[in-house]
Amino acid sequence: MNRISIIGGGNVAWHLSQIISKTKELQLVQIINRSIKSIESFQKFAEITANFNEIKSTDIFIICVSDQAIAEVSAKLPKDILQVHTSGSVSMEVLHGNRKGVFYPLQTFNKNSEVNVTDIPILLESNTKRDETFLFTIAQLLSQNVSFVNSENRLKIHIAAVYVNNFVNHLNYLAFNFLEKNKLNPKLLLPLIRETALKLQHINPYDAQTGPAKRNDVSSINTHLINIKDLKLESIYKTLTQSIIETYEEKL
Amino acid sequence: MNRISIIGGGNVAWHLSQIISKTKELQLVQIINRSIKSIESFQKFAEITANFNEIKSTDIFIICVSDQAIAEVSAKLPKDILQVHTSGSVSMEVLHGNRKGVFYPLQTFNKNSEVNVTDIPILLESNTKRDETFLFTIAQLLSQNVSFVNSENRLKIHIAAVYVNNFVNHLNYLAFNFLEKNKLNPKLLLPLIRETALKLQHINPYDAQTGPAKRNDVSSINTHLINIKDLKLESIYKTLTQSIIETYEEKL
Repeated sequence: MNRISIIGGGNVAWHLSQIISKTKELQLVQIINRSIKSIESFQKFAEITANFNEIKSTDIFIICVSDQAIAEVSAKLPKDILQVHTSGSVSMEVLHGNRKGVFYPLQTFNKNSEVNVTDIPILLESNTKRDETFLFTIAQLLSQNVSFVNSENRLKIHIAAVYVNNFVNHLNYLAFNFLEKNKLNPKLLLPLIRETALKLQHINPYDAQTGPAKRNDVSSINTHLINIKDLKLESIYKTLTQSIIETYEEKL
Repeated sequence: MNRISIIGGGNVAWHLSQIISKTKELQLVQIINRSIKSIESFQKFAEITANFNEIKSTDIFIICVSDQAIAEVSAKLPKDILQVHTSGSVSMEVLHGNRKGVFYPLQTFNKNSEVNVTDIPILLESNTKRDETFLFTIAQLLSQNVSFVNSENRLKIHIAAVYVNNFVNHLNYLAFNFLEKNKLNPKLLLPLIRETALKLQHINPYDAQTGPAKRNDVSSINTHLINIKDLKLESIYKTLTQSIIETYEEKL
């Protein structure tokens, strides 16, 4: 049975620990984090420790810490055991071990939100064929959507993920906030938010586009701009409207 | 049995015709559109015509045309029959009839994408109590999520909808396009897009935010900016990152 240890106490560490502990072909050996307090709730998944001298024997360390901390954490681990990080933006080369790789789950994780893992893309990279095979074996136990991607392409995919998750979520936040400030119920937007995403499971976003900007409907656009009454929202409205108009002009 | 006629041949007309024709308590009398060609496929729902002189007796006209065309179409309809439009941005007052209202489904419709209608918010308005009651009766047969909203608030909700649908879809388009240009498969993003939306069904977007901008992680942000290599994408990245940074600074 393959033995896995997790380093970190954030959202990715939480979800990976949970999934791995539920997978009967895998053994979650230990969860290691500088602050023991922030991983107390991880005890239900495996043994926890804050002491890097108490690290147990394992087959792989999955480092789930912030991008800036990866190199530092990596330097504290045994040199001869495979270590991988889970970051979209960081090169594999920052790792200190002799055997290294990347195990990047392309998903947004919050501790207080369950995620269906089975179709999450897991993007792998390693510096040896043997460790590629090992990573593939583990990843396939967790998801049906596993592929190999080099550091350059992984960074591009991460950039795209920032648009479809971080920026999209922020637009949803701004819209919620706008309705709340106007004493309207933001939950009205939930069916629309859901359909906006689900539609793309079967049509592409170019064809899915609707609304005044696509039609270059200047009258509706101006009505909106007059009624937004918030400089930041107005500026974001103008930037994205202009980009939509250009997208459909170009293709005409 | 309440009789309904639809004016228009676009996405909203298509979905309303489909839903109404399937609702056994409602009778879809006719679908009317200036161009008969664009409503040929509507024949499976009800009788179609392009001739406003052939309009049949009905209880309500639902006008599903572009914002600019509503007033013109409205003027051609019998004055004594209730007429409503389906626009988020247009005041009820542009309608010419003596009995008027709004029937605004807060959803994004494409002809080639099925929509689960039962929880779509339908926002109603009318100038008489009697017609309010009538609209409510019809709307409740189509959705469990019906409410009354005046023109001012409806416009605000429509503005919010532009952010969560039109702008979000465009960000998804930009990300797809970025991956395609880099010869990477945009479908990798679909599970993330889906989870980004579904997460908001149970946590609010302020708490759901993740990513480098929220953490004000300047190093990751700069790595992204250097690697985007597209002026428009770069400008949108900067605008939204700045807005996220300010959102979490403000609340600290």
